Amino acid sequence: MRRRNLSLVLHTVATHGPISRAGVASRIGLTRSAVSTLVEELDRAGLLVELGPGRPGTVGRPGSELALSESGPAGLGAEIGVDRLAVCAVDLRGRVRVRAEEPAAHRGSAPGPVLRRLARLCARVAADAGREGLRPAGLTVAVPGLVARDAATVVRAPNLGWEGLDARAPLAQALTLPVTVANEANIGALAELWCGGHSPAPRDFVYVSAEIGIGAAVVVDGALLRGAHGFAGELGHVPVRPQGLRCACGGRGCLERYAGEEAVLRAAGIDERGPAGVAELRNRAGAGDGAARRALRGAGAALGTALAGVVNLLDPEAVVLGGALTELAPWVVPAAERELRRHVADPARAAHGGIVVSGLGRDAALLGAARSVVQDVLDDPLGAAPAPA
Amino acid sequence: MRRRNLSLVLHTVATHGPISRAGVASRIGLTRSAVSTLVEELDRAGLLVELGPGRPGTVGRPGSELALSESGPAGLGAEIGVDRLAVCAVDLRGRVRVRAEEPAAHRGSAPGPVLRRLARLCARVAADAGREGLRPAGLTVAVPGLVARDAATVVRAPNLGWEGLDARAPLAQALTLPVTVANEANIGALAELWCGGHSPAPRDFVYVSAEIGIGAAVVVDGALLRGAHGFAGELGHVPVRPQGLRCACGGRGCLERYAGEEAVLRAAGIDERGPAGVAELRNRAGAGDGAARRALRGAGAALGTALAGVVNLLDPEAVVLGGALTELAPWVVPAAERELRRHVADPARAAHGGIVVSGLGRDAALLGAARSVVQDVLDDPLGAAPAPA
Repeated sequence: MRRRNLSLVLHTVATHGPISRAGVASRIGLTRSAVSTLVEELDRAGLLVELGPGRPGTVGRPGSELALSESGPAGLGAEIGVDRLAVCAVDLRGRVRVRAEEPAAHRGSAPGPVLRRLARLCARVAADAGREGLRPAGLTVAVPGLVARDAATVVRAPNLGWEGLDARAPLAQALTLPVTVANEANIGALAELWCGGHSPAPRDFVYVSAEIGIGAAVVVDGALLRGAHGFAGELGHVPVRPQGLRCACGGRGCLERYAGEEAVLRAAGIDERGPAGVAELRNRAGAGDGAARRALRGAGAALGTALAGVVNLLDPEAVVLGGALTELAPWVVPAAERELRRHVADPARAAHGGIVVSGLGRDAALLGAARSVVQDVLDDPLGAAPAPA
Repeated sequence: MRRRNLSLVLHTVATHGPISRAGVASRIGLTRSAVSTLVEELDRAGLLVELGPGRPGTVGRPGSELALSESGPAGLGAEIGVDRLAVCAVDLRGRVRVRAEEPAAHRGSAPGPVLRRLARLCARVAADAGREGLRPAGLTVAVPGLVARDAATVVRAPNLGWEGLDARAPLAQALTLPVTVANEANIGALAELWCGGHSPAPRDFVYVSAEIGIGAAVVVDGALLRGAHGFAGELGHVPVRPQGLRCACGGRGCLERYAGEEAVLRAAGIDERGPAGVAELRNRAGAGDGAARRALRGAGAALGTALAGVVNLLDPEAVVLGGALTELAPWVVPAAERELRRHVADPARAAHGGIVVSGLGRDAALLGAARSVVQDVLDDPLGAAPAPA
């Protein structure tokens, strides 16, 4: 009960701060003195700060206002992308305080060296964060692949070439931190929920992460639908052309073969891959290049076909498009919308709100990863806080 | 709290009865005397019966055992099918006590006369149930169409030709009973959960109702996923051949155009429709007729393509096939399985348990409808029980 109340106070300050003790008390229905005791404990743990006397004109004696600490516990997030490693540290308020990124070529690379390089990058970011008075409470790593329900095992990451790998143990050992491994689409969807800038955030939506691989996450009533084996969200392998191109997954006509980053670059006749290729495609499409625009329309149409199935089946409040391909949204989304509307059955078609483009871009999963550590601290303030050094 | 405890006792007797008061008390963690008070109240309301002294050899003084009453509150369920009306009454134990069915030709029929005829059939079944000592506590009506979240409005039932119709008011007025209107796939899925004979029942599954229309229901953690507008489950309009046949929904290449009852009968060269047509198709397929078998394989393949998308997206524990087409399962399911496995991405393919055929056949929605009323009584024993006559 005390743990629950500590979390309630902290969440209230996170959402409504700066806020006085009396303000917290009235919002959560506890007495002012009970709140003061809880605040004292959170203060000692370095989770809260007092901002000095409240604004004049407020009722009662002037009390100092509370806010989340800008130092103390922090979240480390990392992303193992096909073409980059990225790490960031966010404070309790969710602000990115340190960020580091290195280009990489991870396709088919051995996991050991990648994880060692990531551990070094994380250690560097953690040290930088430490100099700002932050203490990482944990690390969440987003990977472009299926992660088992143990939040440790990468079951299959086809675009890395990894299979059945414990990605948690080596990182946890190197960093002496609690480590969680998560699917990048799942963690991107949570980022949309926590820091997508929606007000109110949709509680039932489908998040599409469109990169080299295409993943999705289904959020129902504010929680991720993980599936019986943790494999939910494989939108990239929904068949959109049942007799179409063979896919590495063993299937045929998978969405990824038509709308994945590599498929689109190939269709546009661009040899470069990764961010440089995407930038080139954006430039060409912007300049009116026919092949580039056709490639993007084709990708959009394939995406729309797959999403029509999703909308018919789940009737979500919103479809949110995230990931690297959001940079190409002006050309992809209209074609996807057209196909989606063509295949969604009335009256869902009339009710459907269309495709929303995430504002978080390429960093959605990275931000979500770091934020998930902060959420854990807010949910269990003393459990997750490491002992002060 | 008292209502919750009454429901707990009743559910415990439903699941574990016949059972003594002491048995109930130990299972739900209340004192024997608290349970006795609750049992007395449930007994007065006609919900429980005592079966006489318990089995010898049980600990403590011999107490009579408790079971759900076979008279008293009952559930009425109805189904408005494209080619039939059906009504049944089930007792608290979930046994069908009265059942009536009339053939019909509802395609494009005006709703008024259909609802009046249904009300008469319900009144007859209720009267027959009354002669067996049963008092219907409510009526749930399953319809082959989208039902709004108000559980009253048929938003669109394309195979009946109904749109924007309040189906509840006329029935509630005619029968002076609480009436609930439900989508037939949703209520069929709940039937699978409540009386599908699975032990334990899957908590996360996709239920496919394959009839003239093809609907589906997604069950997550034992609860229906209804969608933002109540339109979830439109599997029949998932595009399986994106450039394929036009559908009445306005789309193209919808599953229903390849695997719906009419599409299959047409492909097999059978002119009859409804149960007679399905029986003829079954006979021909059984006798080795090439056209019949090809039609069923084609339907199975289309179904498998749509289900591959579903499995990739939701990773359900099970896919359950229900409805009239279950009679054709021996020919449809192998083709569907083959296509499903071809398009489900590894490793979900390896984990996937295949398609399970429901044992409830054509009556799934009808049974589920009646059972849903009983479930409401079990959930809120005194709220739902009508005053004794």
